[in-house]
Amino acid sequence: MTTSFFGLDQKITFEGADSSNPFAFKHYDPDEMVFGKRLEDQLRFAICYWHSFGWPGNDPFGGETFERPWFASHWDRAKGDAMDAAKLKADVAFEMFSLLGTPFFCFHDADVRPEGTSFAENTRNLQEITDYFQEKMEATKVKLLWGTANLFSHRRYMSGGATNPDPDVFAFAAATVKTCLDSTKQLGGANYVLWGGREGYETLLNTAIDHEMDQMGRFLNMVVDYKHKIGFEGTILIEPKPQEPTKHQYDFDVATVYGFLKRYGLDAEIKVNIEQGHAILAGHSFEHELALANALGIFGSIDMNRNDYQSGWDTDQFPNNVAEVALAYYQILGHGGFENGGTNFDAKLRRQSIDPQDLLLAHIGGMDVCARGLKAAAAMLEDGSLQQNLVDRYVGWESDFGGEIMDGQYGLDSLANKVLAENINPDPVSGKQEYLENIVNRFV
Amino acid sequence: MTTSFFGLDQKITFEGADSSNPFAFKHYDPDEMVFGKRLEDQLRFAICYWHSFGWPGNDPFGGETFERPWFASHWDRAKGDAMDAAKLKADVAFEMFSLLGTPFFCFHDADVRPEGTSFAENTRNLQEITDYFQEKMEATKVKLLWGTANLFSHRRYMSGGATNPDPDVFAFAAATVKTCLDSTKQLGGANYVLWGGREGYETLLNTAIDHEMDQMGRFLNMVVDYKHKIGFEGTILIEPKPQEPTKHQYDFDVATVYGFLKRYGLDAEIKVNIEQGHAILAGHSFEHELALANALGIFGSIDMNRNDYQSGWDTDQFPNNVAEVALAYYQILGHGGFENGGTNFDAKLRRQSIDPQDLLLAHIGGMDVCARGLKAAAAMLEDGSLQQNLVDRYVGWESDFGGEIMDGQYGLDSLANKVLAENINPDPVSGKQEYLENIVNRFV
Amino acid sequence: MTTSFFGLDQKITFEGADSSNPFAFKHYDPDEMVFGKRLEDQLRFAICYWHSFGWPGNDPFGGETFERPWFASHWDRAKGDAMDAAKLKADVAFEMFSLLGTPFFCFHDADVRPEGTSFAENTRNLQEITDYFQEKMEATKVKLLWGTANLFSHRRYMSGGATNPDPDVFAFAAATVKTCLDSTKQLGGANYVLWGGREGYETLLNTAIDHEMDQMGRFLNMVVDYKHKIGFEGTILIEPKPQEPTKHQYDFDVATVYGFLKRYGLDAEIKVNIEQGHAILAGHSFEHELALANALGIFGSIDMNRNDYQSGWDTDQFPNNVAEVALAYYQILGHGGFENGGTNFDAKLRRQSIDPQDLLLAHIGGMDVCARGLKAAAAMLEDGSLQQNLVDRYVGWESDFGGEIMDGQYGLDSLANKVLAENINPDPVSGKQEYLENIVNRFV
Amino acid sequence: MTTSFFGLDQKITFEGADSSNPFAFKHYDPDEMVFGKRLEDQLRFAICYWHSFGWPGNDPFGGETFERPWFASHWDRAKGDAMDAAKLKADVAFEMFSLLGTPFFCFHDADVRPEGTSFAENTRNLQEITDYFQEKMEATKVKLLWGTANLFSHRRYMSGGATNPDPDVFAFAAATVKTCLDSTKQLGGANYVLWGGREGYETLLNTAIDHEMDQMGRFLNMVVDYKHKIGFEGTILIEPKPQEPTKHQYDFDVATVYGFLKRYGLDAEIKVNIEQGHAILAGHSFEHELALANALGIFGSIDMNRNDYQSGWDTDQFPNNVAEVALAYYQILGHGGFENGGTNFDAKLRRQSIDPQDLLLAHIGGMDVCARGLKAAAAMLEDGSLQQNLVDRYVGWESDFGGEIMDGQYGLDSLANKVLAENINPDPVSGKQEYLENIVNRFV
Repeated sequence: MTTSFFGLDQKITFEGADSSNPFAFKHYDPDEMVFGKRLEDQLRFAICYWHSFGWPGNDPFGGETFERPWFASHWDRAKGDAMDAAKLKADVAFEMFSLLGTPFFCFHDADVRPEGTSFAENTRNLQEITDYFQEKMEATKVKLLWGTANLFSHRRYMSGGATNPDPDVFAFAAATVKTCLDSTKQLGGANYVLWGGREGYETLLNTAIDHEMDQMGRFLNMVVDYKHKIGFEGTILIEPKPQEPTKHQYDFDVATVYGFLKRYGLDAEIKVNIEQGHAILAGHSFEHELALANALGIFGSIDMNRNDYQSGWDTDQFPNNVAEVALAYYQILGHGGFENGGTNFDAKLRRQSIDPQDLLLAHIGGMDVCARGLKAAAAMLEDGSLQQNLVDRYVGWESDFGGEIMDGQYGLDSLANKVLAENINPDPVSGKQEYLENIVNRFV
Repeated sequence: MTTSFFGLDQKITFEGADSSNPFAFKHYDPDEMVFGKRLEDQLRFAICYWHSFGWPGNDPFGGETFERPWFASHWDRAKGDAMDAAKLKADVAFEMFSLLGTPFFCFHDADVRPEGTSFAENTRNLQEITDYFQEKMEATKVKLLWGTANLFSHRRYMSGGATNPDPDVFAFAAATVKTCLDSTKQLGGANYVLWGGREGYETLLNTAIDHEMDQMGRFLNMVVDYKHKIGFEGTILIEPKPQEPTKHQYDFDVATVYGFLKRYGLDAEIKVNIEQGHAILAGHSFEHELALANALGIFGSIDMNRNDYQSGWDTDQFPNNVAEVALAYYQILGHGGFENGGTNFDAKLRRQSIDPQDLLLAHIGGMDVCARGLKAAAAMLEDGSLQQNLVDRYVGWESDFGGEIMDGQYGLDSLANKVLAENINPDPVSGKQEYLENIVNRFV
Repeated sequence: MTTSFFGLDQKITFEGADSSNPFAFKHYDPDEMVFGKRLEDQLRFAICYWHSFGWPGNDPFGGETFERPWFASHWDRAKGDAMDAAKLKADVAFEMFSLLGTPFFCFHDADVRPEGTSFAENTRNLQEITDYFQEKMEATKVKLLWGTANLFSHRRYMSGGATNPDPDVFAFAAATVKTCLDSTKQLGGANYVLWGGREGYETLLNTAIDHEMDQMGRFLNMVVDYKHKIGFEGTILIEPKPQEPTKHQYDFDVATVYGFLKRYGLDAEIKVNIEQGHAILAGHSFEHELALANALGIFGSIDMNRNDYQSGWDTDQFPNNVAEVALAYYQILGHGGFENGGTNFDAKLRRQSIDPQDLLLAHIGGMDVCARGLKAAAAMLEDGSLQQNLVDRYVGWESDFGGEIMDGQYGLDSLANKVLAENINPDPVSGKQEYLENIVNRFV
Repeated sequence: MTTSFFGLDQKITFEGADSSNPFAFKHYDPDEMVFGKRLEDQLRFAICYWHSFGWPGNDPFGGETFERPWFASHWDRAKGDAMDAAKLKADVAFEMFSLLGTPFFCFHDADVRPEGTSFAENTRNLQEITDYFQEKMEATKVKLLWGTANLFSHRRYMSGGATNPDPDVFAFAAATVKTCLDSTKQLGGANYVLWGGREGYETLLNTAIDHEMDQMGRFLNMVVDYKHKIGFEGTILIEPKPQEPTKHQYDFDVATVYGFLKRYGLDAEIKVNIEQGHAILAGHSFEHELALANALGIFGSIDMNRNDYQSGWDTDQFPNNVAEVALAYYQILGHGGFENGGTNFDAKLRRQSIDPQDLLLAHIGGMDVCARGLKAAAAMLEDGSLQQNLVDRYVGWESDFGGEIMDGQYGLDSLANKVLAENINPDPVSGKQEYLENIVNRFV
């Protein structure tokens, strides 16, 4: 089966900043060396299967706009059954990965295989498509950044997967994650992600949050145990989100996930996949969540899609603001860059962007914005002014006195005595925010 | 020194729901038995010193409106120095506590004593006013719900107290907390609160959040150590808030504080004081924060002042919506009610409410709303329908299968085998949210 | 065709506040006289067709949960074609109207008739179902509060209906409204509503807002002209909403609609249908939008469904907070109550509320909350304290001086001369907000 | 009197993008020709007096941080009275204008003159400082972009100025505006601005919004009349803001102001001064407000200071995101650029930025960001792709059919007939949002 879905017959290539060719990269040259690595290896781009190939363009007020030939609503049954449609979808997906030269992709089980009427059928379908993917990955050298299980779309999960009041749903969810971990391992996935879109509540009136958190702790311990049992070497990642579709989601933000991991003894086993859009919804900047995850030692990977700051739902737009992206990569690169993680575009077209080529244009633009952002971050780090300013600001803590405080050699009373004896009465020092913002703008 | 600040010569008393006397309680009868205790002992009302007696009515766009005689701008110097003004303020405060019959109050050091030019002077001033308070408390039987140190208003704290880049500021802050803990112990305080209004950042460009969190962890360990050293038996409480005045505050919400306490080994020592307004700013309902704190075992006390849902800053209004208050007390009463904690009105008048009597009216209204809310919560608990619904919803987890899952007897693979073998394919069950909301409305 | 969809064999009746029967009204007695009218005639309840009978329970992260037998996904084709399914839906809808005793309903064309493949087919389908409705309305005495056209769900409208860049879409939309107005007139509708869910934009980069506003002005003038041409005597209403699904909707809020009506000469012809949830999304309280519409003379009708203040999308929940509802009806009743308008529940079940009886329970709860709210509003008006306070506050404007200012007898310079000459230097007076809020709580 | 407040002895000059001198412009070369004008004449920068020289660095949780020598708290009385302090402030202000080379400034009366105890004293003080300004303006060639009256800080205005329930406050406000208009005229101001920070309400319970809107309509008509009477040729501008300090401000946003102007017959006389931060608070993008004002014919001037999207209050930060600024200037330049208006920095330092040089650095950074933004906007306009795309998208409206619709030659029924007859059934066309965003990123 071949496709000519995009109407392009050659790969997108780097043409440089002066190009006005919409189908060329202007800033993303995968082979450019940036901060000690090829740009491709710094950015580790991934394309998500669900938005690009699964989402029909619907929203709460309107239906499908995209009319892809593999959608059930448009599938030509003369061409085969649902599995054939799924394979056509895969063909187009890998065609796009190749056109764009993105090294990774990500998927949920429900994105890639037909929904069955039982767990057994789902498992068979997933296995068949996993094998199909494996062939294509070998042929194209495209790799899997992460796999994941969709535990939120089917109505059985309407009250949660791991946190469902019914243990049978917990069991169905656990069994499903088992198969997705198996597929992810088979495909050499670098990570496995859990996003708990229904692991939360609509109303406390019908919710025992203590029990549900314990269920989730049990579930995640089972995931970690099974990972070790099968020798999966990728990282297990939780993706925080504060709400939507639920009123409240348990994995609200990085700090909440950290407390949860500590509570259930998982902080050495699980890291976070941070999405800009979810950070925003939780009232944080993206760079806050990145900095915090690094400070807590749980940074894993990112979903580089932005939300509109003024729309209170997940808009999942492609990144288009270089300055914001630069500040994000500054946090990532400044802490050593990605290990297993990468830059996943969990981004969807606007629903009016109905042409197949819109998919390419959106990714080209996003990749260029990320390339510019990462290069600006690298330049800021190489310049060193920002970092030096930080060192200077905290220099007092490098003194004997500072060290003794941090080592626990003082109590409130001995400090009070010292303040009294020395009449300590410190003058404040400028925080220099505008000066530092101007430095950033030298590089962005 | 006597005051007739309020122009009332008798205490506010309970007159019942049919009264139209603005200076009477319509629902708060302190001696009414509710859910096994006197209403006064369930609610444990406290009045805050800062908003009621310290705040001049300014906002970011306008100056003082209240013109209290003890304010520096209106103090008649013929009547004495700043300490005399502070004592007049105390006289009026205790006059109000007596008029309202509120059993508790709360204060920061900076609310009650003149600001000195050194730590030594601050300490002397605080001691003098502490002694003055002690006399008044003995005379009036008013008690201290909690004391706290203001580590945010003075410019020395502009970049933080415990988290300041300058260890001298840390030392000044620590010394100040020492004196406030001493005063709180002397006055028999039931709790000691820390609100970190400047323990956060304006920009990550000048902030080492890992170092600052470590500083805060050190600081709080010193507070706990000193508490034990002096034998203070009250509870240490952190008051979460997500932002304002900072762009980001480290004690963002209950979940964040929990993770922080776990990280620094403090989860058995410190609990939370939850404010409705701060919950709202963090994107949570008040009852969420209460339920979560109870689930995590760190619930302490509450600030019962509401924010406008549509104003993105702390509006600190008196509670006036019985239904919302009832849901909050339902979480509190359902988990055993207050131990050391209580209901503090960290609420301020609207700045146009410039008459002294407005202070009384605001508290009367707030106390009545809380009384109605708590009685409704008690009625819901006594009825038991909501709780029974919850038990029924999770009954599956009481089965052998549910118990075995929670006990760790299953892994992902054994659960998958079971799902396959038994073709488990659960049907969802109604969440009944509207039914449950209707039940609540039978009692509110 | 008969239904026993709800499993109830008798109407919901009023049993009083002490009833614990979930299927009884506790506060809504249609025949109770309130503020001079029967409660039914004050509230003028309507049930919306779309959420109650058309919405499958999907959300952006999950599919259908409700599985109604008339949904295409569940329709038993042995029982007939799509029109038969539509008639079954109508049977159930009118069964529910009768069970609840709601006097009105509302619908879009797309809710009630099968989607055709052409305008001609849509028109035939709508006519057939209109005739079917007419029979049922005569039989049940249920009336139509308003009809409306769905110009947002079909993909042809993805870039707008009236404001589409393609005049053919404008024409299709106009033709569709023509048929909906015809149906509304045939069914004796009291109003006709326009909600412009796609009349806005996703990005200014592809939008000529000046042209689009002119298109919308033209469209609305055509609606008004046609109304008069066919002698439709109902009121034309615009329903404001600020965003969602669009990034920006032209009918942002009441004030924006007013300016639009003035610009296109329509302010005497068109009024507004105000939804609580939409008001909230626009940053306004519901009562603000009601008060403003009354002040501007364009108040028409309401959608009484609430949004979660903390979820940034339309949650469309049934009202459950009596205090808030009371403040809304206070604005409505205080300005004379509804003329053609009414209280439409544009509310949907939570998607976990999958039992048919949940639909009844939700409406029973909402109707009781509205009944309590309206009765509280009436009591506040009859008491008169709030109104008297308002009169007293503005009494200065009843003076000669106040009157002369308002009559235009002063200019800035003559006023300045007067201020100088008389050394006018007014003292502020308490705004008494807490006092007034306490009065409200006497009646809620 | 001379100052050396900033410790710099030469003007800030343009050094180009490669400069790392913090005290040089990297992008703002006033003499560069951009889109047909000198950059200085395109941008028309203004510095605001209030934030830069009046604000002490306080916020709702902390006091003064800046300690400027002219503040009452730090004024050396040996050097003179309050008017001398005001003149020192003016000296420093004009020193800064000269150092930066900003061609304009803006002020409120209360920023520049000591507060008196009567209207007469305020007037004398304002006149004295106006004369002082006039000399300095002649000496430095710095011009006045706009003057305005502070009708919100003094407690007399706590319940509004023009909309106060007390006509004496209206009179005081009107008299004050008269003096400010006089000063603005004397100083050759290009505009006069009204920002109604207290023209709104805290609660509808004490507010007659219909009366207050009529008061405001009367007030503004008096302003316009007086402008004509004295021959002031500048533009009268209203600055919209949705809330803060009030719960609701009448001048909510551009659309609201437009409706208000239409209602009171002022739409030909008054335009708007749009602030990015206020746009954001109202739920709009800055470019939306600009585009709408242009579409409605009421665009006047801008305040180019940004709010943090995630802080629900006015943060008034200097602009630092070039991409956002470019989109704003694209709207302005695309509609002909500024006439009387300009780019006012209504921005304040972060309160930790306590060094005098921080004031310079903040403005240098802001001016460079604006220069880059405007040059990018010019490049987009010169390229023309975006504009061409827009023309192509709406080309259908240039057809005969499109023209006839807009000319009113069709009614709903004739359009319906045409749709039927021709079976019009349009296919949607891609909105190309990502393609267009990529074009923008070629120029930013």
